[in-house]
Parts: sequence; C-alpha cells; structure tokens
Amino acid sequence: MREVFHQSLEDVQGRLVEISELVTVAIDKATRAFGTSDVTLAEEVIEEDTVIDEKAVELDELAIQILARQQPVARDLRIVVAGLRISASLERMGDIAEHIAQLTRMRFPERAIPKGLKGTFTKMGELDVEVARTLTEILRTEDLTLVEKLRTLDDQLDDKHLAVFEKVLSENWQGEAGATVDATLASRYHERFADHALSVAKKVAYLATGEWTPATDAIAIIAAGGEPTA
Amino acid sequence: MREVFHQSLEDVQGRLVEISELVTVAIDKATRAFGTSDVTLAEEVIEEDTVIDEKAVELDELAIQILARQQPVARDLRIVVAGLRISASLERMGDIAEHIAQLTRMRFPERAIPKGLKGTFTKMGELDVEVARTLTEILRTEDLTLVEKLRTLDDQLDDKHLAVFEKVLSENWQGEAGATVDATLASRYHERFADHALSVAKKVAYLATGEWTPATDAIAIIAAGGEPTA
Repeated sequence: MREVFHQSLEDVQGRLVEISELVTVAIDKATRAFGTSDVTLAEEVIEEDTVIDEKAVELDELAIQILARQQPVARDLRIVVAGLRISASLERMGDIAEHIAQLTRMRFPERAIPKGLKGTFTKMGELDVEVARTLTEILRTEDLTLVEKLRTLDDQLDDKHLAVFEKVLSENWQGEAGATVDATLASRYHERFADHALSVAKKVAYLATGEWTPATDAIAIIAAGGEPTA
Repeated sequence: MREVFHQSLEDVQGRLVEISELVTVAIDKATRAFGTSDVTLAEEVIEEDTVIDEKAVELDELAIQILARQQPVARDLRIVVAGLRISASLERMGDIAEHIAQLTRMRFPERAIPKGLKGTFTKMGELDVEVARTLTEILRTEDLTLVEKLRTLDDQLDDKHLAVFEKVLSENWQGEAGATVDATLASRYHERFADHALSVAKKVAYLATGEWTPATDAIAIIAAGGEPTA
C-alpha cells in the first residue's frame, strides 16, 4: 500500500514535468511563430493546447483519486494539493501561448510584430522559453536555488515590457492604432509567463517548507539562503 | 465528528461567498474609479486587495486541514477540492480589479478612459458588477440556472470588448498611442472577469454532477436542463 502510494506521488510529479515540457514547446513555437509570422506553426500551438488542457484534467482527477483512496496527510497531502494548483498555472501558461499564436494567425499574412519592436519581442520570446525550461527543471529536481534564476528572468521580462510601452509612447512611434493594440496585447502576454512560473515555484517552495502565506514568502526565504527540507 | 465535518464544509462555502462579496465590492469600486478618475476610490481597491488575498490563503489552509483531519471522500472531497480552485479564481478576479485601479491611479489627474469610450466602459463596469453579484449568488445558493445569466453577461462583455477595438481601429479614432494602450489594457481587464466567473461556475457545476472534463461540459448539460443533485 505504502509503495503504491509513493508511486502515485511520483506519478503526480512526473505528470507535472510532462505538462511543463509541453508548455515549454508551446511557448517556443508560439513566440517563434509570432516573430516570423509563421501561421502553420501558430496553428500547431492552437491545436496542441487541447492536449495540455486534457493532461491537466487527467492530473486533477488523479490527485482527487489519491486524496479519496489513500487519504494522505502532512507533506504527502501538500504534494497532492500543490499538484492541483500547479496544474492550473501550467494550463494558464499554455492558454497564453495560444493567445500569442491566435494574434499571429489573426494578422496573417501581415506581420503581428509592429515595426521597430522585432528585436524586443524576439528577446522576450527567448526569455519566455528560458522561464519555461527553468520551471520544468524546478519541478523535476525541486532545486529551489533555481528560483533566483526565475526572478532574474522575470525582472528582465518586466524591463522589456516597459521598453515596449516606452517605444509605443515615444514621439517617433510611427505605428497606427492597430500596431499599438498588437504591441500592447503581445507584450502583456509575453510578460505574463514569468509571473505564472514564479507562482508555481512558490508552491514548490511551500512543499519544501510548509509555509504558504503572503507574510512569509517562502521563496524569499529560500533565495536568501534558507535550506529546503529534502 | 460528522457534525463537525458538516460545519467545516459550510464554513468553506461561507468563506467562498464572503470572498466573492469582497470581490464584488472591489470590481464595483475599481470600475467606478476608472470611469470617474477617482484616485481615492482606486487606492481603496489597491489597499483592500490584500484582504482578499489573505482570506483566500486562510480558506486554502482550512481546506488542507479538512483534508488532513477529516479525510473526506466522494462529494465531500469534491467540495473541498473545488473550494481550493474557486478561491484561486476569486483571488485572480480581485487582482484584475486592482489592475484597473492601478491604471486609474497611474493616469491621475488625467482621465484613464480615452475620449469616446466612456459610455462603453461604464456599461462594461456595470456588467462586471452584475457578473460578480451573479457569481456570489451561485456560490450561495448552488442555483445552476443562474449560469445561463452568466453566459449572457459574458457574451455582452465580449461584444463591448470588440466594440472598443472597432472604435480604436476606426478611421475617426483621434486618440494618441497612450489612449490606445489604455483602451486595450482596460478593455482586456474588464472583459476577463466573466471568463473567471464562468470558470468558477463550472467548478460548482462539477460539484453537482461529478463531471469535470473538457468533453463533457457540465454547465452546458445543466443549462440545457440537466438536474443537479441536491
């Protein structure tokens, strides 16, 4: 029984890693499709998002079954509950990748990237893929020192997000209203991934420490040198 | 023991209703602050969002305690799990109200509502408050016939969201890039509440039916006349 239970928990973790890998592929494809106006690639992202949604639902059902049949307590219970919450964040990251793909498809054969912002969005896309890869690694290894890397990536994305607005609001911005709308929405989407990833990392940190309140930010504690329990 | 357990479940439901009421107040204040450039009201929303966040964390801790101590199964288990997921959506609705308030504060003493869109945004704000009130009622009564009303409100909000883009992209749009950015972000925020509310309603429907997969949309079944179990 005990062995079955531990296999179940490993199954939860394995599925989270799998979904996170699918989300990484979606973000990579969506940001590249956006940058190159590749409508075929964009359509792949839109189609494949249902796979991510289905895998998230399957994981939720597995978690509920574990709660019902094995009635875990203490850290085991927290792993299952965190799994439920993490799957929701990963699903949302997949949705945002889909939004970027939809923007690309909607503008095709025109470019969705407004003139003068190609470099900025290409960089944002690369940072987003790095965010997703780092998150997958955190889920796989529970190595919370990687949270610091996620924070740095989030800061870099925030800077790029501001740079988009500075550009759009500058005197030499030549874009029409449509380009301004696209830049605003796309920048917002590109910037959101890191927020969700940090939210997931917070839940992993919570697993390690049992702390989960706004007042005691577990990630801050760990990033500052606190030791997660193994 | 059984009685304690039922009190706990009622406590979960009561707290969800309470958070939903706080979210309704936040949406009402934020959309009015945005419409009238009332920076004091906007700051209230920003300050009060921490209360919503804290109440959501408390609810989550209560749910985890119930899972650990009372090890519910079947429908009772689903209520607790749904509570965890609903609290996350309500918290997110509070965050969006805060974003609208922040937009208002950032532009003050200028108006955040771009010229020519005041009527549209005022209407969107009213629809948003109605969405939140309806959601609170669904959580309080588990009356799933109200889901149809939520769908109608969502459709109306989607129409207004499109109307904002039509205006911004029309030839007689006089706004500068800054006004276009504000209109895009504000419209996106105003439109998101209903999506989250429908997501919550879906979880309430799931409680009633035990069905929760993309393929079998419980709300659709119920809205079409399916009977929730009491």
